Amino acid sequence: MMSEAISLPDTLAQEVAFDDKGLIAAIAQQHDTGEVLMMAWMNRQSLAETIATGQVCYWSRSRQSLWRKGESSGQVQKLVELALDCDGDCLLLKVDQTGVACHTGRRNCFYRVLTDDHRLEDRLPVLKDPEDLYGK
Amino acid sequence: MMSEAISLPDTLAQEVAFDDKGLIAAIAQQHDTGEVLMMAWMNRQSLAETIATGQVCYWSRSRQSLWRKGESSGQVQKLVELALDCDGDCLLLKVDQTGVACHTGRRNCFYRVLTDDHRLEDRLPVLKDPEDLYGK
Repeated sequence: MMSEAISLPDTLAQEVAFDDKGLIAAIAQQHDTGEVLMMAWMNRQSLAETIATGQVCYWSRSRQSLWRKGESSGQVQKLVELALDCDGDCLLLKVDQTGVACHTGRRNCFYRVLTDDHRLEDRLPVLKDPEDLYGK
Repeated sequence: MMSEAISLPDTLAQEVAFDDKGLIAAIAQQHDTGEVLMMAWMNRQSLAETIATGQVCYWSRSRQSLWRKGESSGQVQKLVELALDCDGDCLLLKVDQTGVACHTGRRNCFYRVLTDDHRLEDRLPVLKDPEDLYGK
């Protein structure tokens, strides 16, 4: 468990535009293939921890707590590169994803694709049983 | 100008979890290279218009109006594929971007990369003069 006292690098503290809930959107992209894995949220503390440790840590809006990605499931994200967008309200995390990013056991979260006749079609296989990822 | 009466396909109306402001995050990714171009927001109307026209339309939070990407600048995004994430609160738009996605004249918005010594380094060239994009 990391200390709560990790501070954000000054450059990011100045340039990140946290929203009215203190959060910034973070897109995770597999660094070598370009696959967009997921989008989640970070607060100041989770961003600072991610940079300090090199392991991606989000802020869980549903649990209102730090979400060290893969802590329960083992499906960790190693940070390769972090970029900030032009207006400072979105991060692009290039990561190395172990296993699957999605809690459904799929490689990424964007598996529901809109078809020409307006159905949502599952396009990705379930690679890991969610019960194995999170226990029963 | 599109009619305001375009409705969202039923499947998306049921599955998209708009937030408390009626918005959903949308990531635009160049369909053939995998480059993440930008992240912006859509409301129900802009999403419906995007699907109906095949040209990406966001919701501008700053202007509180529809933002037909490229309407002023010519830097349009043609929709190639639309995917919804597992919990319905983020869209991944695979697009074909004409010119540059970023209002700074860079190809994408994530040009500020965090260096090992915690500086933000501009990594992308300005390809178009913003004054040419938006007029003087």
